[in-house]
Amino acid sequence: MGSSIAGQTAIAGIGSTAFSKDSGRTELSLAAEAVSAALADAGLSPADVDGMVTFTLDFNDEIEVARVVGAGELRFFSRIPHGGGAACGTVAHAAMAVATGMADVVVCFRSLNGRSWRRYGAGGLTQRQVAPTADMVLYSWYLPFGLITPASWVAMFTQRYMHEFGTSGEDLGRVTVSARGYAATNPAAHFFQRPLSLAEHQASRWVVEPLRVLDCCQESDGAVAMVVTSLERARDLRQPAAVVAAAAQGSGDGQQSMTSFYRESITGLPECAVVARELWRQSGLGPADMDAANIYDPFTPFVLIQLEEYGFCERGESAGFVAEGNLDPGGRLPTNKNGGQLGEAYIHGMNGIAEAVRLIRGTSVNQVGRPDHVLVTAGVGVPTSGLILERIA
Amino acid sequence: MGSSIAGQTAIAGIGSTAFSKDSGRTELSLAAEAVSAALADAGLSPADVDGMVTFTLDFNDEIEVARVVGAGELRFFSRIPHGGGAACGTVAHAAMAVATGMADVVVCFRSLNGRSWRRYGAGGLTQRQVAPTADMVLYSWYLPFGLITPASWVAMFTQRYMHEFGTSGEDLGRVTVSARGYAATNPAAHFFQRPLSLAEHQASRWVVEPLRVLDCCQESDGAVAMVVTSLERARDLRQPAAVVAAAAQGSGDGQQSMTSFYRESITGLPECAVVARELWRQSGLGPADMDAANIYDPFTPFVLIQLEEYGFCERGESAGFVAEGNLDPGGRLPTNKNGGQLGEAYIHGMNGIAEAVRLIRGTSVNQVGRPDHVLVTAGVGVPTSGLILERIA
Repeated sequence: MGSSIAGQTAIAGIGSTAFSKDSGRTELSLAAEAVSAALADAGLSPADVDGMVTFTLDFNDEIEVARVVGAGELRFFSRIPHGGGAACGTVAHAAMAVATGMADVVVCFRSLNGRSWRRYGAGGLTQRQVAPTADMVLYSWYLPFGLITPASWVAMFTQRYMHEFGTSGEDLGRVTVSARGYAATNPAAHFFQRPLSLAEHQASRWVVEPLRVLDCCQESDGAVAMVVTSLERARDLRQPAAVVAAAAQGSGDGQQSMTSFYRESITGLPECAVVARELWRQSGLGPADMDAANIYDPFTPFVLIQLEEYGFCERGESAGFVAEGNLDPGGRLPTNKNGGQLGEAYIHGMNGIAEAVRLIRGTSVNQVGRPDHVLVTAGVGVPTSGLILERIA
Repeated sequence: MGSSIAGQTAIAGIGSTAFSKDSGRTELSLAAEAVSAALADAGLSPADVDGMVTFTLDFNDEIEVARVVGAGELRFFSRIPHGGGAACGTVAHAAMAVATGMADVVVCFRSLNGRSWRRYGAGGLTQRQVAPTADMVLYSWYLPFGLITPASWVAMFTQRYMHEFGTSGEDLGRVTVSARGYAATNPAAHFFQRPLSLAEHQASRWVVEPLRVLDCCQESDGAVAMVVTSLERARDLRQPAAVVAAAAQGSGDGQQSMTSFYRESITGLPECAVVARELWRQSGLGPADMDAANIYDPFTPFVLIQLEEYGFCERGESAGFVAEGNLDPGGRLPTNKNGGQLGEAYIHGMNGIAEAVRLIRGTSVNQVGRPDHVLVTAGVGVPTSGLILERIA
């Protein structure tokens, strides 16, 4: 069909709690704070909200969040599956709902006590199954033999990638060093005022070879929310509109959740290629048009591979791209200027969207210039999503 | 915004497994059978599928179902929350995705061993919580004191409704008797060839007063799937298109999941009124335009209340509407001609959508004439959804 969501909607408000390792509060309380802040930021009231989207992983029913913040009837609600792969998908669903008139003001949120309650880094150690589901059958080939955490699953892909392309541990480390450079000047970041040297990265302990602890993102407590409405309405609101130029989801052939080991090659992330293709198709833009990015960074090697899947480098050339300083200030593609999940906090990618909105507005703590287009990506190794935000004159 | 999904998409294929009390198979196997059948019904191949939607309650990841049936990349996936309230929401999300070009062919499915694995009728008896979520706090006011099953929660609303409007147990029973009349001539129904008299209903045991066992729907094993695509594409496919004239979700003020007892009045279902308003707005139609209906029937009193919320009767007058035979063959609004969940099977409302498609096609086992418009509703007492299917010349 001819229609598209491209350019029809905008993120009009963003809100976050403080990020911590032990919030001391319920996830509902965090969600309510972030949602209220996002609405206030947009200059909207809870009564304006008529749609809500979150992750399947979120423990907060949107009807509970709605009641707590003072919202009333809802006309649209959706849950996006696949962990952090949901992040940009929340905005994609919100944009669809607004573009089709199913809702006018949709709040996307994610709230988690990801360090003090449920630790996602624990992987299979925290799983409790109520039914013999197919994903558990797949995991059953790996978990009993020690491939039990996200780090261990990602190490498999990384080992092969490094073997094929000659990537080194220093190449991985430069991703963290870049992120920590941005985090050091971001007061909201866990690693505020704590930049990292490559030598420190190289001296850090192994988690699962070839991944060191400083190749792994944090676990964090916190919540982030954003408000999506029509571009027309957003233009009249308090903040400069961050236009949703494109928003897409994608899953690839032979897709499994974190363990797609039976693909022909395991050095790529074909689900990201699906998302990239959709983003370029919707927006008419390409990698060369992206002025900055927020690239989902649970583990450093998946940042490298995403740079390739989204077309910023040829296959196997992302390590060189990073070594040239292209993710850093003044580089070709300043990336994760909030410090990313390696440096700021692990809010399942939602804090990356908030940072992209700040870049479009010109309010990032690490702002340099005003990007016209910012790419945001989401969880990797799982069905995922992506987003292009655009600045309007 | 001006755009809408109304009339842009259609259900092009439906598929079901056999319904039973003990499938002896996994839910993945059931899902694959239903999805494959729906694609074959439409004359589409698995490779055509690029979107999938199911319930948050479904244990089958869409990527597993996709791989098993032979589908490849996906561009759209969504999970709809709130139990049976999700049923028509799956089609609503699919229609949004197709109308905005996010996907071309979206499969909606629900597969459950609802009798032999997880019994939803057990309510709080099967809950295992991993976090102190707000919905559990609400349930904690009720569960420890015996309000522990869906039947017990619905009995609260029913008691008050009967008190206010003088509704009798016979009035409730007539809903079951009507459904069982249709089920008796539907070979796919559990109660095939077993019609019910009002006397038998009245002689059945109490579950929770004022609900008798024959006021409660079944628990069933089975799966149902449907294929949503653009109306343009559906016109060229194997089956007559069942046009999605409208599809909506809704949650009301003071909404809780099954226990919205703190509303000013508990004799209505305001979330259904939200859905009704949206359906009429999208389609430009009204109750008088509906020629048949499939009304979600977990418990008989909620059929009565829905007839009022969707505008077929004034408040408190639905018992009379039913007593006049309006749900029966030749009545004003033939309803649940598959036997409903009381008579056919409890597939969380998805079998009701399939029956509505058959009515539009003219292939229901209880077909009389060809309706132009069929209303379908979804789970009640929770945030819910609805659908209007339309026949084209």
